[in-house]
Amino acid sequence: MSEVINRVTGEEMYGFVKRIFPICRSLTGEGVRETLRLVKEQLPELELKEVPCGTAVYDWKVPAEWNCSEAYIEDESGKRIIDFRENNLHVVGYSVPMDEYLSLDELKEIVHTLPEQPEWIPYVTSYYRPRSGFCMSQKQLDLLKPGKYHAVIRSTLDEGGVLNYAEAYFPGETEEEILISTYICHPSMANNECSGPTVTAWLGKYLSRLERRHYSYRIIYIPETIGSITWLSQNYEQRQLKERVKAGFVINCAGDDRTYSYVKTRYGNTLTDRVLDAVLRSHTDSFQAYSYLERGSDERQFQSPLINLPVCSVCRSLFHKYPEYHTSADDLTLVTPSGLLGSYELMMKVISVLEKNRRYMAQIPCEPQMGKRGLYSTMSIKGSSNSSLDMMNVLAYCDGRNDLMQIAEITELDVMTVLQITDRLAAEGIIA
Amino acid sequence: MSEVINRVTGEEMYGFVKRIFPICRSLTGEGVRETLRLVKEQLPELELKEVPCGTAVYDWKVPAEWNCSEAYIEDESGKRIIDFRENNLHVVGYSVPMDEYLSLDELKEIVHTLPEQPEWIPYVTSYYRPRSGFCMSQKQLDLLKPGKYHAVIRSTLDEGGVLNYAEAYFPGETEEEILISTYICHPSMANNECSGPTVTAWLGKYLSRLERRHYSYRIIYIPETIGSITWLSQNYEQRQLKERVKAGFVINCAGDDRTYSYVKTRYGNTLTDRVLDAVLRSHTDSFQAYSYLERGSDERQFQSPLINLPVCSVCRSLFHKYPEYHTSADDLTLVTPSGLLGSYELMMKVISVLEKNRRYMAQIPCEPQMGKRGLYSTMSIKGSSNSSLDMMNVLAYCDGRNDLMQIAEITELDVMTVLQITDRLAAEGIIA
Amino acid sequence: MSEVINRVTGEEMYGFVKRIFPICRSLTGEGVRETLRLVKEQLPELELKEVPCGTAVYDWKVPAEWNCSEAYIEDESGKRIIDFRENNLHVVGYSVPMDEYLSLDELKEIVHTLPEQPEWIPYVTSYYRPRSGFCMSQKQLDLLKPGKYHAVIRSTLDEGGVLNYAEAYFPGETEEEILISTYICHPSMANNECSGPTVTAWLGKYLSRLERRHYSYRIIYIPETIGSITWLSQNYEQRQLKERVKAGFVINCAGDDRTYSYVKTRYGNTLTDRVLDAVLRSHTDSFQAYSYLERGSDERQFQSPLINLPVCSVCRSLFHKYPEYHTSADDLTLVTPSGLLGSYELMMKVISVLEKNRRYMAQIPCEPQMGKRGLYSTMSIKGSSNSSLDMMNVLAYCDGRNDLMQIAEITELDVMTVLQITDRLAAEGIIA
Repeated sequence: MSEVINRVTGEEMYGFVKRIFPICRSLTGEGVRETLRLVKEQLPELELKEVPCGTAVYDWKVPAEWNCSEAYIEDESGKRIIDFRENNLHVVGYSVPMDEYLSLDELKEIVHTLPEQPEWIPYVTSYYRPRSGFCMSQKQLDLLKPGKYHAVIRSTLDEGGVLNYAEAYFPGETEEEILISTYICHPSMANNECSGPTVTAWLGKYLSRLERRHYSYRIIYIPETIGSITWLSQNYEQRQLKERVKAGFVINCAGDDRTYSYVKTRYGNTLTDRVLDAVLRSHTDSFQAYSYLERGSDERQFQSPLINLPVCSVCRSLFHKYPEYHTSADDLTLVTPSGLLGSYELMMKVISVLEKNRRYMAQIPCEPQMGKRGLYSTMSIKGSSNSSLDMMNVLAYCDGRNDLMQIAEITELDVMTVLQITDRLAAEGIIA
Repeated sequence: MSEVINRVTGEEMYGFVKRIFPICRSLTGEGVRETLRLVKEQLPELELKEVPCGTAVYDWKVPAEWNCSEAYIEDESGKRIIDFRENNLHVVGYSVPMDEYLSLDELKEIVHTLPEQPEWIPYVTSYYRPRSGFCMSQKQLDLLKPGKYHAVIRSTLDEGGVLNYAEAYFPGETEEEILISTYICHPSMANNECSGPTVTAWLGKYLSRLERRHYSYRIIYIPETIGSITWLSQNYEQRQLKERVKAGFVINCAGDDRTYSYVKTRYGNTLTDRVLDAVLRSHTDSFQAYSYLERGSDERQFQSPLINLPVCSVCRSLFHKYPEYHTSADDLTLVTPSGLLGSYELMMKVISVLEKNRRYMAQIPCEPQMGKRGLYSTMSIKGSSNSSLDMMNVLAYCDGRNDLMQIAEITELDVMTVLQITDRLAAEGIIA
Repeated sequence: MSEVINRVTGEEMYGFVKRIFPICRSLTGEGVRETLRLVKEQLPELELKEVPCGTAVYDWKVPAEWNCSEAYIEDESGKRIIDFRENNLHVVGYSVPMDEYLSLDELKEIVHTLPEQPEWIPYVTSYYRPRSGFCMSQKQLDLLKPGKYHAVIRSTLDEGGVLNYAEAYFPGETEEEILISTYICHPSMANNECSGPTVTAWLGKYLSRLERRHYSYRIIYIPETIGSITWLSQNYEQRQLKERVKAGFVINCAGDDRTYSYVKTRYGNTLTDRVLDAVLRSHTDSFQAYSYLERGSDERQFQSPLINLPVCSVCRSLFHKYPEYHTSADDLTLVTPSGLLGSYELMMKVISVLEKNRRYMAQIPCEPQMGKRGLYSTMSIKGSSNSSLDMMNVLAYCDGRNDLMQIAEITELDVMTVLQITDRLAAEGIIA
């Protein structure tokens, strides 16, 4: 891929992040549907689905559909202190309607702030207990004077509504599949929301362009937690996911420029863990592999004991670990074209390695005569064999026991180098 | 358990140590029987047994029964330099009778001292070769002047006697059993003798009070080495110990206040090793897990290749490792109520973990809705999930693969915390 | 073995190195045959073999037999600048004949030097592409003035010739065999050639003197690479080498005094790796265990995936790693009697351990009564058991699970000490 195309891709993705950033998403509601429609423009293979509210999904029930048309606090002069239209973080997610006049002290009981990050508005939800609430910066709250405040939330919680998600399937040569999941349930935050659906959409474009797919690929756009629980409860047995899913990724917080990270599975030893570790070593100098104890996204459901799919969260800066997480500071300045592009390219490499991964076996007893194949110097003088040493080392471990990641680890080579060498050796018939 | 009860228990145990301290015990003889009678006052379940001298036990033979009524050295003036009645360490254990007049040089050949610990009397035995001998401090020996000394030992070695031991059995729901062994063969030393029988007796009281025992428990009071060999030779096959004993402990040197320690099994990987390691991490900040190469008590027999029972020595300061070991300085000032209590409470915790230990399996696919069970915050704001994180982490590893100790290790939690959490989750039906 | 005998052996071996040093060896030819005849004088069991040139051996073909009678460069005055008769490194191995007048610039195209080691002549070969070439020191080349030079090589490449190797077989109680391989294909270099055939010949003498051999031993003298490929292609299936060879060693670079080293097998876990590691710990304070990634001799063929024999290169200074490697400085000053003797004694110990290695099992339940066998102190006082502690520790791990090397590792004892103790315990019937 040329650098120009790369730059274009990064800018295109950033442009899409900007388009979906303003939408007020939640577990359910019109914002989710609007987001999915915009994604489908990019990824026509996507099919939109809905599940009625109240549906039992394992230990849970799909909650009522929430929509919010207006939310503000006015002071005595009628001036709006905060307004949902300016920033949809100002209302607590799933707030029930209210229209009340409150003293400052009463108001403070339903206003959430971050005293240690006083400039930023927190992101707060109350999905499973009816509450009304507002969010603002600590700094703004500190400026409020005693008096009467008018707090208004015009929202609906519709038991007759639906929960939406979407799915795209790219069939391969085998029904074994790679799962790529991302979520569409957070309001206006750029890294911890918009980056994931965007990188995932561009990965979908990449998958649709691939001439040959060994694995089938399934991409899902779901609300976090209740969405993965819902999707699993309706698909886990039906589609034999335990047997079919060979690796899986939750793409999220994928747009900043700081580092790379992933959350290991419970025991850190699945194909997903291994391919991420090997490709990240190749892709970047600085990444963090977090223990499953640091989990926080849908790997919590995918890796739960009775589900046990080999799924890792893949991030730039991990949720929980960057200061802007779940605040109004997670905005369009935190996400960058190059940040998005890095995640996209990482996943392209991951897919390349997965597609080509196998346990090769040497086909010729003893070392093959590399010289007659143009793969080895024909004259021996001190140091003359160094140039082909990597190839001979890879070949030595093509003994039917090691996959590409294991060969990379043993030979201390970059997994992408191992991939190139095994391609070459396989083309020569030296391994199979 | 309240602190007051604890303090009382510590004092009670210390009182019992004081009662059995003066008795002259050896492999066999009246001192052993007297000690066992006193223990039986505390632990009525104890049954006293005897094995005739000369009985073949594996590669050994039960030695003659030794009793000693008098042993002293007089100087020319008739003054007793040392007297067995003042300290029973003065006579070499299993000394044959003597009544001789010796020069100082001759005397020195049968007197043992510790030149590097010149104030203390050593503890010396000669079980398997007939000898007569005395022990005194180096300091006292240095003061002796040339002259004639009268050395008298009035002892008997009775081939028609017996070796005594005792056993208590507390049946549980299963015939699988936990073995607790302690020894009663050392004369007046407080830590390396009296502490073990005492803590073990109080553990017996605790076991008899337990409302429910999953495992059966077997407590044995035996002389060290020949006693365990004798007991094994008469019970190993007969009672199918290899199949039944799931964990075992030699309680000894259990009364000082310095540290905690245990001796690992040969490979350090049995249930006994694992429960001790996990509970000690919870119970104390400072403990030592010694390699089997540092063994020294009856784990030598229980862990020998053809016996191979999962038994560890459990100590405060390990035998061999504390300066007073096998000297007259191992006295009633070295052992304390709190030292004894610490060992007792450690073993109570060990028993609690063993009783509740299992490989739990989650019962609900995906994460359960903890909120509706009052186990999880219903509102999400940065940091709100921390309080329930331990519980979610334990649950994540209730996948049928890990017992309590493994969950503690993976989640980096205290095993007693894991025990509380799994009790709670099991009560809610979330795991089973 | 007394020190005098040792010293004699070292001097004898050094004398033999001196005899074979001047011979011009290559993959094939008269020099190889002459060397093998000299070795056979020392080791009459050796049988000389030949394989016709052109024979297909796996992916290769046996090359034409090369002999060189004359090679020199004369300047305009007729003075010989370099002459093969003075140092056979001056001609590139397998050079085709030439007789040409060249300008200095033309000459430089076929002359090889080592600019970074300007005093030394490099060792260069071109086995698999017809070339003519010379080698000299950089220093000598720098002195040459423009002019006409007469470059002459009188060599033959005979397609009707043969490749020679030799083999000796020492049958043991079992058909399981230990393979010892060395190579005879380098011209006048002392460590990286002459030391290997010499130490191997003396090991053959040692094997022939052994009263009892558990294993059968096979010694092969082959040219490197093409020789091992040829030998394997003609013997691997026929002699069931995969089933029979339990350990194997390529003895080379075995005569300097610097360090000891070996090249691990691909996974570093075969009996060969383990016995070398254990014996080297006993034999020397400083050795290097190199990864298979550092391989360079016939372990490349023996360990290739479809051959997979457990063979390690055993060296003093590893090929590649010492500065004189593959230069004229690898001469008779680099190799010493004590260097050769060290390798010889190392391999004698390796053979001793292999011969006696087994997984012993204790025969007596509990600890045996060592005292009655004179193996243990009969009186117990602090410290009295230390002298027999090693024996008791070895016995504790004679549980049918560990071989001598594993017992040495677990007990932190020298493997030669473990060997002595197990011999003693087996003689007493305590283990079997």
